[in-house]
Amino acid sequence: MLAIGERINGMFQDVKKAIQKKDKKVIQDLAVKQTQAGAAFLDVNVGTAAQDQEGTMKWLIETIQEVCKTPIAIDSQKLNVIKAGIEVVAKGSNFLINSCPLNTKKDPEVLEKYLALCQEHNASLVALTMDREGVPQNVEKRVEIAAAIVEKAMTAGVSTDKLFIDPIILPINVSQNQPTFLLEVMSQVKLLADPRPHMTVGLSNLSQGASERSLINRTFLVMAIAVGLDSAIVDVFDTELMDAAITAEMLLNKQIYSDSFLKAARMR
Amino acid sequence: MLAIGERINGMFQDVKKAIQKKDKKVIQDLAVKQTQAGAAFLDVNVGTAAQDQEGTMKWLIETIQEVCKTPIAIDSQKLNVIKAGIEVVAKGSNFLINSCPLNTKKDPEVLEKYLALCQEHNASLVALTMDREGVPQNVEKRVEIAAAIVEKAMTAGVSTDKLFIDPIILPINVSQNQPTFLLEVMSQVKLLADPRPHMTVGLSNLSQGASERSLINRTFLVMAIAVGLDSAIVDVFDTELMDAAITAEMLLNKQIYSDSFLKAARMR
Repeated sequence: MLAIGERINGMFQDVKKAIQKKDKKVIQDLAVKQTQAGAAFLDVNVGTAAQDQEGTMKWLIETIQEVCKTPIAIDSQKLNVIKAGIEVVAKGSNFLINSCPLNTKKDPEVLEKYLALCQEHNASLVALTMDREGVPQNVEKRVEIAAAIVEKAMTAGVSTDKLFIDPIILPINVSQNQPTFLLEVMSQVKLLADPRPHMTVGLSNLSQGASERSLINRTFLVMAIAVGLDSAIVDVFDTELMDAAITAEMLLNKQIYSDSFLKAARMR
Repeated sequence: MLAIGERINGMFQDVKKAIQKKDKKVIQDLAVKQTQAGAAFLDVNVGTAAQDQEGTMKWLIETIQEVCKTPIAIDSQKLNVIKAGIEVVAKGSNFLINSCPLNTKKDPEVLEKYLALCQEHNASLVALTMDREGVPQNVEKRVEIAAAIVEKAMTAGVSTDKLFIDPIILPINVSQNQPTFLLEVMSQVKLLADPRPHMTVGLSNLSQGASERSLINRTFLVMAIAVGLDSAIVDVFDTELMDAAITAEMLLNKQIYSDSFLKAARMR
């Protein structure tokens, strides 16, 4: 599983304080430790920690790149902040833009703009199954949006394996029929193109406000891997979560079984 | 998930000794404690603990029924031992016969005999996706056997919700492509009839001889629940396994979420 480490986000108090004090060490520790814990990408999100979103995004990425080469996921809802991130991200690195919907009321061609950036920089993109009407509440419509995203990617010359389709997860205590619904969406999305688009979810959102957060997160992650999920934005410090993901992929024969399969996966 | 408690089996040393010493307390403790831990059925298998298979099966069932009313899964490969168990099982109880293949070289109509017993006693049956040729190594053939089992059940007047189709699990260190294969079989078997046949697996067999047994067992169980498994023969004393199964079913909306959903499931 391509784990996208969620911790460098201004919504976390330690990161918020580090941003405000320009304390590089906190950010660099999180970058290195998330990498050691198995992060394939480091998500970077300024959140509400600073007025200067562009400058802060640049500072965060530069700070991280001083200590590690783990690919960055530039995470913002604003195109100007994404572009600021791209300006400083290491040339030739395999970065990810997180994220963009199919379209919005304000900008019917927003996805085309993001895809053009991907094409220009050979970057990957998290694309959300939502459009100008919001997040659809039936399987067909979400898959339809995913198909439209895939089609636009192809038109833009972006390979479908550069796409990370995010079917959008809601908290379990808000809508309990979402997980079943998402498993069905995922089963269908994986069939949309060859090469397969990746699929990802912002996993921690599932257990927002719930008890047994780690148990709920890892259980859903394993269920989702069983139907085709191959990436997730997660707390990579949750060892039980990462062990569950490694084991699920070993059971799907994506990693050879040995008595030390957990250790072997962590070594990669 | 309908958990079938695996512990009253002569292959376990404590049970073997208890059988040989006619020590009721060991058996009764296992019956009560497995019930408290969430067993919907108690599997009873003499194993190699005694020469007198029939008499021992009777003694085990009578011993259990002295202290609890949990339905029994009479587990033997021999029809005479199953019949001995049926003689003493509480009248009108919802028992399970474990197990029977589609047919064998020796007896092409073995399933018909087991189905007749089910029909007579309103019992359920674990039916294995194997036939006179053995256990097939392709998805289509295993599903074909499952379909033949379903058809024979209908012909015999046994409702398909009395069937527990067991697609047969092999140890991960013997065949690593089995889990993916079984998930595909399960996805198809659940569609074979209305009402759906149950599906079950002898879960512990997956991790025979492996390290991380509990992690492997619960991870596969969750993956299988995601594609339709609704029963398993398990170590119900494995709390993490039972928690994972409860959480997977809550995520599939089979149990209402509350902050105490684990406790609520255990209370039922």
